[in-house]
Amino acid sequence: MVDLIEPDLLLHSLMGQQHQQMINDFGPNLIRLQVTNQIKELQTVIRDRNTSRSDFIFYADRLIRLVVEEGLNQLPYQQHIIITPTGGSYDGLRYEEGNCGVSIMRSGEAMEQGLRDCCRSMRIGKILIMSDEETHEAKVFYAKFPPDIHSRKVLLMYPILCTGNSVMKAMEILLQHSVDEEKVIVLTLFATPDGIHSVLQRHPQIRILTSEVHNVVPLHFGQKYFGTD
Amino acid sequence: MVDLIEPDLLLHSLMGQQHQQMINDFGPNLIRLQVTNQIKELQTVIRDRNTSRSDFIFYADRLIRLVVEEGLNQLPYQQHIIITPTGGSYDGLRYEEGNCGVSIMRSGEAMEQGLRDCCRSMRIGKILIMSDEETHEAKVFYAKFPPDIHSRKVLLMYPILCTGNSVMKAMEILLQHSVDEEKVIVLTLFATPDGIHSVLQRHPQIRILTSEVHNVVPLHFGQKYFGTD
Amino acid sequence: MVDLIEPDLLLHSLMGQQHQQMINDFGPNLIRLQVTNQIKELQTVIRDRNTSRSDFIFYADRLIRLVVEEGLNQLPYQQHIIITPTGGSYDGLRYEEGNCGVSIMRSGEAMEQGLRDCCRSMRIGKILIMSDEETHEAKVFYAKFPPDIHSRKVLLMYPILCTGNSVMKAMEILLQHSVDEEKVIVLTLFATPDGIHSVLQRHPQIRILTSEVHNVVPLHFGQKYFGTD
Amino acid sequence: MVDLIEPDLLLHSLMGQQHQQMINDFGPNLIRLQVTNQIKELQTVIRDRNTSRSDFIFYADRLIRLVVEEGLNQLPYQQHIIITPTGGSYDGLRYEEGNCGVSIMRSGEAMEQGLRDCCRSMRIGKILIMSDEETHEAKVFYAKFPPDIHSRKVLLMYPILCTGNSVMKAMEILLQHSVDEEKVIVLTLFATPDGIHSVLQRHPQIRILTSEVHNVVPLHFGQKYFGTD
Repeated sequence: MVDLIEPDLLLHSLMGQQHQQMINDFGPNLIRLQVTNQIKELQTVIRDRNTSRSDFIFYADRLIRLVVEEGLNQLPYQQHIIITPTGGSYDGLRYEEGNCGVSIMRSGEAMEQGLRDCCRSMRIGKILIMSDEETHEAKVFYAKFPPDIHSRKVLLMYPILCTGNSVMKAMEILLQHSVDEEKVIVLTLFATPDGIHSVLQRHPQIRILTSEVHNVVPLHFGQKYFGTD
Repeated sequence: MVDLIEPDLLLHSLMGQQHQQMINDFGPNLIRLQVTNQIKELQTVIRDRNTSRSDFIFYADRLIRLVVEEGLNQLPYQQHIIITPTGGSYDGLRYEEGNCGVSIMRSGEAMEQGLRDCCRSMRIGKILIMSDEETHEAKVFYAKFPPDIHSRKVLLMYPILCTGNSVMKAMEILLQHSVDEEKVIVLTLFATPDGIHSVLQRHPQIRILTSEVHNVVPLHFGQKYFGTD
Repeated sequence: MVDLIEPDLLLHSLMGQQHQQMINDFGPNLIRLQVTNQIKELQTVIRDRNTSRSDFIFYADRLIRLVVEEGLNQLPYQQHIIITPTGGSYDGLRYEEGNCGVSIMRSGEAMEQGLRDCCRSMRIGKILIMSDEETHEAKVFYAKFPPDIHSRKVLLMYPILCTGNSVMKAMEILLQHSVDEEKVIVLTLFATPDGIHSVLQRHPQIRILTSEVHNVVPLHFGQKYFGTD
Repeated sequence: MVDLIEPDLLLHSLMGQQHQQMINDFGPNLIRLQVTNQIKELQTVIRDRNTSRSDFIFYADRLIRLVVEEGLNQLPYQQHIIITPTGGSYDGLRYEEGNCGVSIMRSGEAMEQGLRDCCRSMRIGKILIMSDEETHEAKVFYAKFPPDIHSRKVLLMYPILCTGNSVMKAMEILLQHSVDEEKVIVLTLFATPDGIHSVLQRHPQIRILTSEVHNVVPLHFGQKYFGTD
């Protein structure tokens, strides 16, 4: 599902040669879903201001599941030889235990159900980041993690990566909990080139997985998904 | 998500050069999901005789959704320019109306919910094929279609394509209903090389989409999914 | 959730004293969901010809789940003392194993997912009844059951019970498979008084569970749910 | 589904005459689900310390949906005459617009998906209450509501009502947003008599809907559902 080399033809007209070059410059730690027509359609519905909330949630959930499936694909697997019902042996793969999800509130919470749809008992932590009323500085107000998060791989969920500030703030608290930078995969639906650059510059070992890299991202996502300000 | 040229590296050791060559010989009408680790894991769980029914259904549903998403990707889209909430215009895609699903009983019915999870009001027809008690010949006993199926694209659902006989029998009744061969996409999870060859030889215009081509296919699929003989 | 004595006040104006009397005359083997406002709303949406297919499926699925939950409630339970996380003991109940679902095609299949939503690995069998082309008599064309169905309780699913003929035909094949009449619970959304009478007269031991008893039932149910003729 | 008068027979042995009396003393603003065998089973699985996380989530989601359905039933409906596909008129009910859900973090969030399963575009707000680090007083740290919440009915979601402090703190912030006390329905799975008394004493107009009133409530709910401390 991943295609770092061949940008989708349909996007060709939207992005000049320079932009495409830039995308490839992010290096191997940016992972993009291959943008097929059906994914492009999901992105279109999510960006469209005339989409009803019911449709928005349905299409967003589909895109989230596809990003989550690819996120799971980035986690470690090990060889697993099983026996089939007819007694044959089959050289398969098994997902390694020891992962968890962490959502950055509020919009990241929209991705929790998608994660559970694919991994029904994955532990899901949560981080709340707000501006301090006095200093106006972004601050972690609340964090709830699995107790052994330092030994787990982390799928960090945040659908719209714009400046990257929230993800970087979330990384601070994760590092304080002894999570290895290289064990974190950011799952995001839409990301800006600047946001990706900022995050990867500060944290060169983490991976970012997104369905689209674009200067304009649908900032209304959380508001529309939950119907709140 | 589609990769016709580069077989997955993990499969490399399983399949000799000859087998790989054969896969590529199916031509452009065989569409294979790119076999990532996570898809390989889903296939492993489905093939494992020790998998509980509850897990079997959960993992099968995940693989079905991925096949359905890629199936939807094969359908026609058209350019669709929308306006974003900030007033910008976005050059997107829209799924073209005029499709339907048809499941071949019984195992194909396991794919109906996955189709509805991705396309909540798609019309879903159904075909029952059984052996005639006297002649022992495969015969269509029951068929229920959207009334205007001749003007629709058809996602023909059958999870295990082994000999290809059921799919070919289903094609007979679809052709009798004036469905164009080239409008049919067979959605299947596991397919044998022989089955694919037989179907494509008889119906060179239809497309077959599968997550794996392998001589051994999990024939216990429907029985385990539904828990019936 | 069951209320055999006190008909809902909202229905009072719709049904004369005579009709109410008749409802109570069905005896203890007719089980009616208590018709609350929210259930009445679900019934209204399903009956409304202006309901979109997407809404129809969503509301039908809600009503189906409520009927299924009450159906599960009719199955046998046994005392089950468990230990809580704080070490206390709790005198609870456990669902007894040994049940299965059977859907009567085609409309009954709409209830399969609802059953799975409540009971994720329940085995689900299926019966196809059609008119013989020559004799025009209703005939079982296809039946697929769990191999040990004779030792199981059966939730027989058919959303619209009108004449009762399909249910009675299904009972014939179940009895041939040595299912005890008293082990069958018919799960239906809408039922006519005549249909209920016919079924209970022929099979006095089976139970019928419905959300509404009314002379007019939404016969378009299966067609609208699946979008086929 | 509501039964204020006749306590379930199965609970009879668990609770003495005195306890039953007390339950009835809560007045009409305490609404209890009728405790059927299947609901008692769901409660048992949730209380059992040996339940796996996967089962816990599945059974909790079922109980949540039943509480949500009854919560929706408590909202206002209006008469709605519709036309059936055969041209008949049907005297039905329609759900009145103007409601929203609000979850109290963290455990209340477990109920959000259940609400969305029944009401797919209902707006869902959120409240975070924590102890102030210095004063140790409970404090609202975060609240996100639909902009027009003052004109909406509110389903306030919190699965385990123990002391009632969180619900009362949540009420403070709701009242500050001009929500009418009488427009609030607390949806909870398990509640203590003391907690109910405290909440109803302070806010006599709000309604509390629960599946069980018991001195011991499963305080591990949120931790087990999400797998975090």
